[in-house]
Amino acid sequence: MSLKGRSFLSTGDLTPAELDELLDAALRGKAEGRGAFGTPMAGKSAALVFFNPSLRTRVSMSVAITQLGGHVMPLEIGAGTWDLEHRDGVVMDGTKVEHVKEAVPVLCQYVDLIAVRCFPKLANYEEDKADAMVASFAKHATVPVVNLESAFYHPCQALADMMTIKERFGAVKGKKVVLSWAYHPKPLPHAVPNAFALAAAQCGADLTIAAPSEYQPDDAMLAALRAQATASGGSVRTTSDQQSAAEGAHVIYAKSWASRAFYGDATSDLACRQAYRSWRVDDELMQLTNDGVFMHCLPARRNVVVTDGVLDGQHSVVVQQAGNRLHAQKALLAGIFGS
Amino acid sequence: MSLKGRSFLSTGDLTPAELDELLDAALRGKAEGRGAFGTPMAGKSAALVFFNPSLRTRVSMSVAITQLGGHVMPLEIGAGTWDLEHRDGVVMDGTKVEHVKEAVPVLCQYVDLIAVRCFPKLANYEEDKADAMVASFAKHATVPVVNLESAFYHPCQALADMMTIKERFGAVKGKKVVLSWAYHPKPLPHAVPNAFALAAAQCGADLTIAAPSEYQPDDAMLAALRAQATASGGSVRTTSDQQSAAEGAHVIYAKSWASRAFYGDATSDLACRQAYRSWRVDDELMQLTNDGVFMHCLPARRNVVVTDGVLDGQHSVVVQQAGNRLHAQKALLAGIFGS
Amino acid sequence: MSLKGRSFLSTGDLTPAELDELLDAALRGKAEGRGAFGTPMAGKSAALVFFNPSLRTRVSMSVAITQLGGHVMPLEIGAGTWDLEHRDGVVMDGTKVEHVKEAVPVLCQYVDLIAVRCFPKLANYEEDKADAMVASFAKHATVPVVNLESAFYHPCQALADMMTIKERFGAVKGKKVVLSWAYHPKPLPHAVPNAFALAAAQCGADLTIAAPSEYQPDDAMLAALRAQATASGGSVRTTSDQQSAAEGAHVIYAKSWASRAFYGDATSDLACRQAYRSWRVDDELMQLTNDGVFMHCLPARRNVVVTDGVLDGQHSVVVQQAGNRLHAQKALLAGIFGS
Repeated sequence: MSLKGRSFLSTGDLTPAELDELLDAALRGKAEGRGAFGTPMAGKSAALVFFNPSLRTRVSMSVAITQLGGHVMPLEIGAGTWDLEHRDGVVMDGTKVEHVKEAVPVLCQYVDLIAVRCFPKLANYEEDKADAMVASFAKHATVPVVNLESAFYHPCQALADMMTIKERFGAVKGKKVVLSWAYHPKPLPHAVPNAFALAAAQCGADLTIAAPSEYQPDDAMLAALRAQATASGGSVRTTSDQQSAAEGAHVIYAKSWASRAFYGDATSDLACRQAYRSWRVDDELMQLTNDGVFMHCLPARRNVVVTDGVLDGQHSVVVQQAGNRLHAQKALLAGIFGS
Repeated sequence: MSLKGRSFLSTGDLTPAELDELLDAALRGKAEGRGAFGTPMAGKSAALVFFNPSLRTRVSMSVAITQLGGHVMPLEIGAGTWDLEHRDGVVMDGTKVEHVKEAVPVLCQYVDLIAVRCFPKLANYEEDKADAMVASFAKHATVPVVNLESAFYHPCQALADMMTIKERFGAVKGKKVVLSWAYHPKPLPHAVPNAFALAAAQCGADLTIAAPSEYQPDDAMLAALRAQATASGGSVRTTSDQQSAAEGAHVIYAKSWASRAFYGDATSDLACRQAYRSWRVDDELMQLTNDGVFMHCLPARRNVVVTDGVLDGQHSVVVQQAGNRLHAQKALLAGIFGS
Repeated sequence: MSLKGRSFLSTGDLTPAELDELLDAALRGKAEGRGAFGTPMAGKSAALVFFNPSLRTRVSMSVAITQLGGHVMPLEIGAGTWDLEHRDGVVMDGTKVEHVKEAVPVLCQYVDLIAVRCFPKLANYEEDKADAMVASFAKHATVPVVNLESAFYHPCQALADMMTIKERFGAVKGKKVVLSWAYHPKPLPHAVPNAFALAAAQCGADLTIAAPSEYQPDDAMLAALRAQATASGGSVRTTSDQQSAAEGAHVIYAKSWASRAFYGDATSDLACRQAYRSWRVDDELMQLTNDGVFMHCLPARRNVVVTDGVLDGQHSVVVQQAGNRLHAQKALLAGIFGS
């Protein structure tokens, strides 16, 4: 595996073998303890560029960089800094006073890594799918760029997700993994479920995507997942029956997301999803599984997405899963800055 | 004294002997200079969780951690991160998207210390007195938690306060210390006066709490202070006469706070306090003292709480007092992370 | 040159010889690479106090301090901290809860350097010209204060500007340097153009200030610039003809600023400047120059202040110019903390 000097925008940037090797490095690093990867970032600075809030990502990435010897430089776009334009040819007479074309090359003269979080606008599905802001950062950067959750992917989360499954079950391949839509009081981005599904397919899981019909993945996405799964000896199926999906599952991964059918129309989406308030993970659902674990990227709305019983019970691995963010990101950065 | 691995939510967590030892360590550390305590936090990270603004606390804590070799990770709740729920059993369908039950155990996998600031809502006195957010952090944390000012206590401030009195007068015990309410254009939290009064009582001061009748401490609080004072050879009395309180005092500690009588009703409190606009510390009041010092936790509204004359004069120790935050916190952290 | 222990509020604080020596140190440091200046800030902390947003300044200053071995402590005034009063004798019963008289001496007990950004209010020209907030910081500080852009000056930017000209042309002296006003959809501060013009005059450039009549510099400023230029063998002239100014120029430095005539009256300024929408730097203007470079402090509004063609073309040095902020500031700090 050589991640050296590479950007990481999606697990799709990695071959299945590279992904697997990275997960193993993360698990080894966790076992070996804090100093496992040495200090490959000594003397180096990393800009963490946040267009949106963050807790786990901010802290786990900062601590990862620090433990590897590096210096963290957080930037809050639109708060402590200027808002950024990424479109070409625009007459910039509005609220965005700086273009990525300048901001990123300038940053690259100061820092050795740019990690960026930029959520979707949830207005236009195809526009969000294009993931233009993060792509623009990568295009104009001369240092590696790491995606801390873009409009369409959250690959660092997916690394921790796969690591957690591998840690628990020894492997992802062949495991029955259910990505289940959940009720939530507002439409949410697709980045986490997209990244999870992609990584699970790359790792050869038997993946079931359970969601009401209005919340099913788009056909192109599904075709891409199936191509990955085929190559890795896994499978992908979809269903609108949460109960049947849960039967015999090793993993229930709950996450809410916006409907493509009503993308950009929150009112209609909210009206539609009222019929699906029962899409909440509770003990009954977990009892259908094969002694399965409950996963969630957090933050999780208690008693909305998942009950107190499940989240506080023995099947929940959400805290371990979040903890693995640190180890997965240390392994990633050690690869990028390693010898 | 062994503070090793302990949380610090209030000076009440310490025995009087432990408190005194900690103050001596802080004074020794100040005298010995920047490297006094070595680097017991080398390789360690600390999350500083701010629900509210901070200047002195933010900087003094960050510099303390840095000088001890550690890495500081500031988090602004509700700004750069998600807002947090701390109540049990809630259906989280409102604005709070994450529960302390997840957030804190997750943080504890990344960092070695959590320091948290969370002001009161000033709506319900009993609720604020319960100090639930900080208590919830401590309950769910597996690393030490330090209170950077909660709804009801500000113990790091109280350490610096007692250290400053000891530095100036050689001891706190037997010193005539006046905690005086002051006029201020809005109702303020009780954390600083509570913490000061508690620590002064623990240290055996002869404490006078001077405040208009509507601003007197609650009976339970007063009983607790008197129990501490009795055990330490000090005393606690209350008065509504600021002048008589000041006579012969070693310390005038000015601070405004909300009335319990009108708690949650700012309009009535503001109406009530108009009669007490003269509760401002000026040179005339200071001349009643026994060559006493003027103390305030800062920020202080000039010519409202205290005159320019007092604040810029030779009796003011407010800058020294704030400077002692650094040394008191270094001693505290050296205890928590020490061998 | 001895900058040791000195504040840096304007390049006017330096003699022309000191300024030139500093620019040479910056160029040497850039050539020698990251470790050029050693770690004169080891064990030291610096507060970066931001009243306003920042990208380049925040990152370049933070990385500069880090590379010199120091610890960075960012403070956002009015966001994560209290808002500050700087006027004397005020009754502080409004929104500002803390005075610089306390805040700065307190900070000086924690940190070894204060760097401060405070933009003008753009309400009263003489008030902004007095640069009272930064002056107040310097007055009350016992550690060096560095100006990260005040109401009237941006000297760190000016250092990088002069360094960039010297890097490109071998010298600033005798070079034909044009500071050109540009159209922008709102009135902007004078700090960058003031600092650039002053430093160019100190360095002996042949400086032309091109601006519509309503946007010309004030007479006192102009007299001061001419005094500096005379002493350094340079010259200063003004014109309202952008084309003639550009002829034969080595440098076109574009920047918009508010009209003194309408200072504090944005509506009138905006009405006035509509006649000057053609004051935008494009390829035609650049072709009038002597193979000149395009400079801008960034952020720059594309196709408003400058066209895509110029900014993306071979004459633009804006990214290099911003990159030089790091090296100029490292040289400055190495001087302040050096032996």
